[in-house]
Amino acid sequence: MALENVKHRAKMVMNMATESKKIGAEDPRKILHSLKVGLAMAAVSLIYYFDLFRDGYSTGSGLYAMWAVNTVAVVFEFSIGATIGKGVNRTLATVVGGALGVGAHGATSFAGNTAESIMLAFIIFFICGVATFGRFIPKLKARNDYFFLIVIVTYGLIAVSTFRGEKLIEMAEKRLSTVLVGYATVLVCCCICPCWAGQDLHTLVATNIDTLGTFLADFGDEYFETANSNDKSHEIRASMEGYRAVINSKSVEESLVNFAKWEPRHGKFRYWHPWDHYVKIGAFTRECACKLDALHACLDSDMQAPSGIRERMKEACTAMSSECGNALREAAQGMRTMTRSALADAHVSNAEAGANNLKLLLQTPVWGDARLLDVCPAATVASLLVQIVSCTADVVDSVHQLANLSKFSNPNEVKPHHTHADVVLVNLPIGNVER
Amino acid sequence: MALENVKHRAKMVMNMATESKKIGAEDPRKILHSLKVGLAMAAVSLIYYFDLFRDGYSTGSGLYAMWAVNTVAVVFEFSIGATIGKGVNRTLATVVGGALGVGAHGATSFAGNTAESIMLAFIIFFICGVATFGRFIPKLKARNDYFFLIVIVTYGLIAVSTFRGEKLIEMAEKRLSTVLVGYATVLVCCCICPCWAGQDLHTLVATNIDTLGTFLADFGDEYFETANSNDKSHEIRASMEGYRAVINSKSVEESLVNFAKWEPRHGKFRYWHPWDHYVKIGAFTRECACKLDALHACLDSDMQAPSGIRERMKEACTAMSSECGNALREAAQGMRTMTRSALADAHVSNAEAGANNLKLLLQTPVWGDARLLDVCPAATVASLLVQIVSCTADVVDSVHQLANLSKFSNPNEVKPHHTHADVVLVNLPIGNVER
Repeated sequence: MALENVKHRAKMVMNMATESKKIGAEDPRKILHSLKVGLAMAAVSLIYYFDLFRDGYSTGSGLYAMWAVNTVAVVFEFSIGATIGKGVNRTLATVVGGALGVGAHGATSFAGNTAESIMLAFIIFFICGVATFGRFIPKLKARNDYFFLIVIVTYGLIAVSTFRGEKLIEMAEKRLSTVLVGYATVLVCCCICPCWAGQDLHTLVATNIDTLGTFLADFGDEYFETANSNDKSHEIRASMEGYRAVINSKSVEESLVNFAKWEPRHGKFRYWHPWDHYVKIGAFTRECACKLDALHACLDSDMQAPSGIRERMKEACTAMSSECGNALREAAQGMRTMTRSALADAHVSNAEAGANNLKLLLQTPVWGDARLLDVCPAATVASLLVQIVSCTADVVDSVHQLANLSKFSNPNEVKPHHTHADVVLVNLPIGNVER
Repeated sequence: MALENVKHRAKMVMNMATESKKIGAEDPRKILHSLKVGLAMAAVSLIYYFDLFRDGYSTGSGLYAMWAVNTVAVVFEFSIGATIGKGVNRTLATVVGGALGVGAHGATSFAGNTAESIMLAFIIFFICGVATFGRFIPKLKARNDYFFLIVIVTYGLIAVSTFRGEKLIEMAEKRLSTVLVGYATVLVCCCICPCWAGQDLHTLVATNIDTLGTFLADFGDEYFETANSNDKSHEIRASMEGYRAVINSKSVEESLVNFAKWEPRHGKFRYWHPWDHYVKIGAFTRECACKLDALHACLDSDMQAPSGIRERMKEACTAMSSECGNALREAAQGMRTMTRSALADAHVSNAEAGANNLKLLLQTPVWGDARLLDVCPAATVASLLVQIVSCTADVVDSVHQLANLSKFSNPNEVKPHHTHADVVLVNLPIGNVER
C-alpha cells in the first residue's frame, strides 16, 4: 500500500516534470521570466546586505529591507502592463490608505484614549467595508482590485500602528524609499527581453482568427471527403479542433486588454492604441467559433447526405467555406504584419457571391427526385455556411476598423502573404463562382 | 472645458453609484461580506489596542499587530472555500519559505560573511526562479498560485533578515501568534451567514441548464410565430438571450470548483462531494449553448421558410424543442432540490421520438412541390434540433451521474416540480408523438 502510494506520487512528479518541460518549450519567455524574478530578488537582497545606500536600513531586524523584497515578489508580473498596473495601484493605494490613516488619527485625537480607539475602530469598519464592496464592481475589479486590497492593508497597518502613536513619518519615509528600491530593481529586470501584454493580445486575437480560417479552409475538403489519405485527414481533423480554445478565450483576452492599457508605446503600438477594440474583434471571433462548432457537429453526424446530393452542392459549399477561410486568414495575416489587407475584402465578396450562387443552385429543379431527408444534412451545412459568411464579414470589418483606428500601413508597401490555397482561389474570377 | 470635465466625472460617479446599488440588490450577500470584512478589521484593531492577550505585541511600532491586520485583509475572501484555500496556502507557504530560509542560512553559515551573502543570493535566485515557474503550471496555478507567491515573500524576508542574524525564532513565534489571531477573527466573521462556493457552483450550473431549457421551451413558439402578442414576444426574446452568458461561464465555474474543494460538509453537500463532475456538466451545457446560438441565428435570419412549409414541420419541431426544454428544466430542478428526476429521462425519450417522427415526416412525398431553397431554413432548424436532442441527452446523463455520485434522494420522496408546459407535454403518450 505504501509502495503503491510512493509509485503514485513518483508518477505525479514525473507528469509535473513533463508538463513543465512542455510549458518551457512552448513559451521560453516563461523560463526567462522565472530567471528575471530570481535575479531581481537576488539583487535586492545583495543591495541590502552590502548596504549600498549607506542608509542603515539594512541593520536591525531587516524590517525595512523586507519591504523591498516584498515589493519585488508581489509587483513583478509576467507582462510589463501587469507589472506597471500593479505598481501604480499599489503606490496610489499606499498613499490613499496612509492619508486616510493619518487623517483618521488626527480627527479623533481630541478624544480620550478609549473613545479614540473606538472611533478609530468605527472608521476602520467603514473604510474597509466600502473598499471591500468596491472590489465587487466589475469595472473597478478589472483594473483596480489590487488598489482596494492595499488601501485596506495600509489603512489597517497605520491605524494599528498609530494607536501607540510612534514615529509615523519616519516609518513612512523609510518604507517609501525601500519600496522605491524594489520598484527600481523590478524596472531594470523588466527591461531584459520585456514581455508586452499588448503584443500578446494582438498575437492571440490574430491567431484565433487564423485558427478559424484554417478550419474553414479545410472544412470543404473534409466534409465532401476529397482529402487524399486517411492519415492526412486524421491530422487535419486534429488541427481543426483548435476552434474550441477560441470559444473559451474571453477571460484571457479581457485581462490582457486591462494589462495592455498600462503599457507605454512599444514595438508597432503607439500611445492610445485602441486596445478596447480587441474585445470587439474577440467577441465576433467567438461568435464565429460557435457557428463552427455547429458545423463541426455536421462532420460526424449520423445523418449524412448521399454522395449524389453532396456532389451537387460540393462546389458551391467548398467555395464558400474556403473563401471565408481565406478571408479570415488574410485578415489575421494583415493584423500580424499590421497592414491593411485588401484581399480579405475580395475573399468576403467571393464568399458572398458563393452564397448567392448556392441560393440559385437550390432554386433549380434538378432536385425533384431527391428525398428531403437526404437533402437535410447538406442543406444544414449550406445554411450554416451562409451564417458563417456574415460572421466572417463582421470579423473582417472589425479588423478593418482596427486598421483605421491604429493607422495600419497600406498593403502596397508590404508584399501580401499568399498560401498555396490563396493563389488558387484568388485567381478564380467572381463571375466563375457565380456562374 | 473644466466644467465639461466636472460634469463628465459627476456622471461617472453617478453611474458607479447606480451600478453599486444594482450589485447590492442582485446579491445582498456582497453587502454583507463588506460589512463582515469591516467588522473583522475593527475587531482585530481593538484586540491589539486593548492588548487583550497581554502579550505586549501591540506595543512599539505595531510591528506584530500589523501581521494580524494584514492576514485579515488578505485572507478574507467572499466564499468560505476561497478563504480556507488562501489561509491554508499562506500558512503552508510561510512554513516552507521559513524552513528554506533557515536551512539556507544554516548551510551557508560556515563560510565568511561576503561568501555567505553571495551563496545566499544564489539560493534566493534559484528558489525564486523555481517558485515563479511553478506559477505557470496550470494545475498548480489554479490551486496553489498564492502558495508560490508567499514562499517567495517569506523566503526573501528571512534571507534579508538573517543577513544580520537577529532573533529569528522570536520573530517567527510572534508572527505566528499574531497571524493566528488574524485567522481566528476571520473564521468567526466567516461563520456569520457563510457564503459557500460549493452552493454557488451548484446553483450556477443548475441555473445555466435552466436558462437553456427556457430558451428551448420558448423557441418553438417563437420560430413558428404562434406567440400571442408582439409585446410578449419581445419579452420572451430578451429572456432567451440568457444563453449567451452560459457560453462564457467556464472561468467562473472553474474557480468555484477550486474553491469548493476546500470546503467542509455544508448544507446538502457531503464530504468528498464530486465537485470535479460539475466541470463536466458545465462543458456539456456550454456545448449545448453553442448550438442554441446557431439556432438563435435562424430566428432572425433573412432566409425564412414560407409559412406553408413551416406549418408542416411545426408540430414535430415544436415538440422536439419543448421536450428538450422540459428535459433540461426538469434536470435543473432535480439538481436544485437534489433529487433524482425521472421525468427528465421521459422528456428526453419524447424528444428522441420527436426526432424520429421528424425523420419520418421528411421521408413522405408531400414535399414534391416545395422548392428546396424554401425548405432549406426549416431543414436547418430541424437538423440543429436533432443535434440539440443529443446534447440534451448528454447534459441530462451527466446530471444523472452527479445524482449517482452524490447520492441524491429518490424522486418519490419529494414532489416533482411541474410547470404548466410540463403538465401538458408529459401527458402526451410517446406513441402519439411518434404517430
